[in-house]
Amino acid sequence: MSDPVISLSEVHAIATTILTGHGVSAEQARAVADTVTNAERDECKSHGLFRIPGYLKSVLSGKVDGQAIPEVNDLAPAVVHVDAKRGYAPLALEVGAVHLAEKARTQGIAALAITDCHHFAALWPETERLAEQGFVAFAFTGSNSFVAPAGGKQKLYGTNPMSFAWPRAGRSPVVFDQASSASARGEIQLHLRDGHTLPDGWAIDADGNPTNDPSAALAGAQLPFGGYKGAAIALMVELLAGALIGDVFSFEVSERDNGDGGPPTGGEFMIAIDPSRTRKDGGVATMAHAELLFERILGQDGTRLPSDRRFAARTRTAADGVSVAQVLYDDLQTLLAKAQA
Amino acid sequence: MSDPVISLSEVHAIATTILTGHGVSAEQARAVADTVTNAERDECKSHGLFRIPGYLKSVLSGKVDGQAIPEVNDLAPAVVHVDAKRGYAPLALEVGAVHLAEKARTQGIAALAITDCHHFAALWPETERLAEQGFVAFAFTGSNSFVAPAGGKQKLYGTNPMSFAWPRAGRSPVVFDQASSASARGEIQLHLRDGHTLPDGWAIDADGNPTNDPSAALAGAQLPFGGYKGAAIALMVELLAGALIGDVFSFEVSERDNGDGGPPTGGEFMIAIDPSRTRKDGGVATMAHAELLFERILGQDGTRLPSDRRFAARTRTAADGVSVAQVLYDDLQTLLAKAQA
Repeated sequence: MSDPVISLSEVHAIATTILTGHGVSAEQARAVADTVTNAERDECKSHGLFRIPGYLKSVLSGKVDGQAIPEVNDLAPAVVHVDAKRGYAPLALEVGAVHLAEKARTQGIAALAITDCHHFAALWPETERLAEQGFVAFAFTGSNSFVAPAGGKQKLYGTNPMSFAWPRAGRSPVVFDQASSASARGEIQLHLRDGHTLPDGWAIDADGNPTNDPSAALAGAQLPFGGYKGAAIALMVELLAGALIGDVFSFEVSERDNGDGGPPTGGEFMIAIDPSRTRKDGGVATMAHAELLFERILGQDGTRLPSDRRFAARTRTAADGVSVAQVLYDDLQTLLAKAQA
Repeated sequence: MSDPVISLSEVHAIATTILTGHGVSAEQARAVADTVTNAERDECKSHGLFRIPGYLKSVLSGKVDGQAIPEVNDLAPAVVHVDAKRGYAPLALEVGAVHLAEKARTQGIAALAITDCHHFAALWPETERLAEQGFVAFAFTGSNSFVAPAGGKQKLYGTNPMSFAWPRAGRSPVVFDQASSASARGEIQLHLRDGHTLPDGWAIDADGNPTNDPSAALAGAQLPFGGYKGAAIALMVELLAGALIGDVFSFEVSERDNGDGGPPTGGEFMIAIDPSRTRKDGGVATMAHAELLFERILGQDGTRLPSDRRFAARTRTAADGVSVAQVLYDDLQTLLAKAQA
């Protein structure tokens, strides 16, 4: 029996209905549903409907305020702060992006500090949104404490993703979004579930020794990607998404989390740059120049641009819908029934 | 017979005298000498006096204009551009840093685009300078084409370093500065000189096959650090230091270089953030919060902060001076004699 296939609008409706039916405001629910739907659209399953039970748990446990209304604070001509007020990240990010774009347009470069939010998705939705409006964008966020620092043997950093997006004229932007750990937490969990050993370089056990055992890795610490250089990126992300914006470090998240299985509390830092303001002949020349680099990359066999897989998936899912694992589908139906009761 | 040992002020005088004696302006020479002296001070020998013959070659070949006066252009309230006018990078960076700091202080975040300069040093001098004034700072620059893109088999990117610096109250900042390639170009050259094989993961040969042979690596391509994630960082650096600021990509540098052995032509992009403007309780709270993270890192055995080795060296060299390899010392004496003739 094959898994159910549903349309993207059904994805959105399921997410919205489950959340609003459990006390989440229409705006918070719609913003989460947008993020979940975009993930399903791009076949990033781990951030799609799979996340709905976790989103729900966190509002039921009281960690997330499903009625939160983000508060915007102007901190400097080129810096805006959005206090998410314990809400989900997507609405705060959406509100913040409007102000960030306006500041980047008038000032040339601007920063957005989002605090007290609950992030449970990828970072590419927020950088890509800015790039679609013509901005170069960066995003940084922490997570729970999972990753050892350079030379260390205990977990400290989060998996600390960063995303970067470059706009293209008349085409989808070039976007990357990557953890500063060698692997995602979820990949280790999948190896455990499937009885597979881990590749070298992913993790150390609780004694600090290299391990290929997923259980030992989960009890120990993940390793940064690329050795001390990836660890430096992880440190940078911790500082930007923690001390710089006045929110928690990953180790503080873990020490405070209520263990409800939902999104961690934390902050996110973003930068947007208007590429028409960073060179004397800015604008069209900038975009045309960047295309020369992309041509050289794609001119080599075996290469692709970082976001090409997602954009290819997007074409498929718009036409064909998305498949939902039967177990998840059944869970969602149960949650829908409760929401509509 | 041991190598000569000289004081840091002698380092500075040697660099200045050789350059001014060959037609470099007092300001350009002083700025290069500052950079070279700081490298010797921190025992970063590969960017110290060792670079003087290359700096000199590029002014003698006509690639560098030793008399260049950097031109400052205000591109937006938070963006400043410095046209280095074919001069060495250090003076343009010094001039740009003043404007970048002023804009970051008034706007909260600001960007600096330096173009048409010749960079032959590390990036930490420029981020550290900003951090010493209390700013969070980033720097990005390209180089010659040496590194293969993700999945590719030919060189395209530069070794593309990025640097990040975090200010600390009353202490030296935390600074990292790292290539987005697995190794520095110079490390491969040292392995060749010493007859050593390369570690796995550093390079591919001209046919795109992994190689441990330094000669084959130099004829082929270097690899990014950490696989496709390091390649994504390299791509980001290319875009920031190339198209964004209107300067050359690394492959364009290589296609245009005159082969004089001196610094490549190119640009550099920097961002500075005033951490007292990015959180509502900014300033002292930000710095105190970051210290909690540094304490946790250093609380683990085997760890250190990224710049600790340089700061330790700095204490030694201020008291003891620096040793200069006899061969280099003799070369410098020859150049000094010519400069003073």
